Amino acid sequence: MLIREATRDDWSAIWPLLERDIVAGETFCFDRDLTEDQARQTWFPQLPGRAVVAVDDQGAVVGIATIRPNHGGPAAHIANASFLVDPEHAGCGIRRALGAHVLDQARADGYRAMQFNAVVETSTRAVALWRSLGFDVLATVPEAFHHPVDGYVGLHIMYRRL
Amino acid sequence: MLIREATRDDWSAIWPLLERDIVAGETFCFDRDLTEDQARQTWFPQLPGRAVVAVDDQGAVVGIATIRPNHGGPAAHIANASFLVDPEHAGCGIRRALGAHVLDQARADGYRAMQFNAVVETSTRAVALWRSLGFDVLATVPEAFHHPVDGYVGLHIMYRRL
Repeated sequence: MLIREATRDDWSAIWPLLERDIVAGETFCFDRDLTEDQARQTWFPQLPGRAVVAVDDQGAVVGIATIRPNHGGPAAHIANASFLVDPEHAGCGIRRALGAHVLDQARADGYRAMQFNAVVETSTRAVALWRSLGFDVLATVPEAFHHPVDGYVGLHIMYRRL
Repeated sequence: MLIREATRDDWSAIWPLLERDIVAGETFCFDRDLTEDQARQTWFPQLPGRAVVAVDDQGAVVGIATIRPNHGGPAAHIANASFLVDPEHAGCGIRRALGAHVLDQARADGYRAMQFNAVVETSTRAVALWRSLGFDVLATVPEAFHHPVDGYVGLHIMYRRL
């Protein structure tokens, strides 16, 4: 597996994965009527944001990670990152590889820390992965996510210094 | 003082206040190169977002508050709000009146809670005001805001149920 800068051509592999996740409603805080253009702007952010993709041995895009400042101006030294991995390749370490890459990239870009704003607390594998990569839960916003199966569950705000 | 829905015409009173605050860099997490159009879209959000203004006895706009979902989709039941008050009217209770109004409005709009993502911890008057209106500090993101005088200070994430 290779991780490289995303190009415009990669979007066609990302959008179907993202649409499926939005409809499932178990992970992302996106509106269901998010347009493809809005999604592209979110996942392929303008500089200083950046996007990288994970590519398998056949050259297929199997995941994406996006880094951007979590807030602007005087708070732009804290990075935020988002991740999306093809569920057919779940359990293959793609998310971990993207996570490790993104931490290195954010450090190289001069960010001082990374913050996730909305990690669904019942996504226990994701939470465990981020913990293993050095993130702590700063707070859990109670009942902040309406999960289709679990009902109202908390959203973790996770953080680590770089 | 009256609080009413904002109209497009109110923007001309808001933008100079906002520009001054952005340059001062003590409150908002906006980039300095934020354009007027971007600012307008942020402060006059699309539905279900809404903006209200505080108007003095002479009809002058002296403050604005904006409500929007803090995240989208399955997390859209938590509101976020932003406030801007003319510093020449600081200490007149405008921010408190806007805060109380916004809480009532968000409750009427069906939100279940309100969350602030970035309250500068050294803005002690603002923090005290939000506490007095029922907000708690869920977490403080360390050194997340580069204040021009105080250096790196924390950003409070504040929250209250509605």
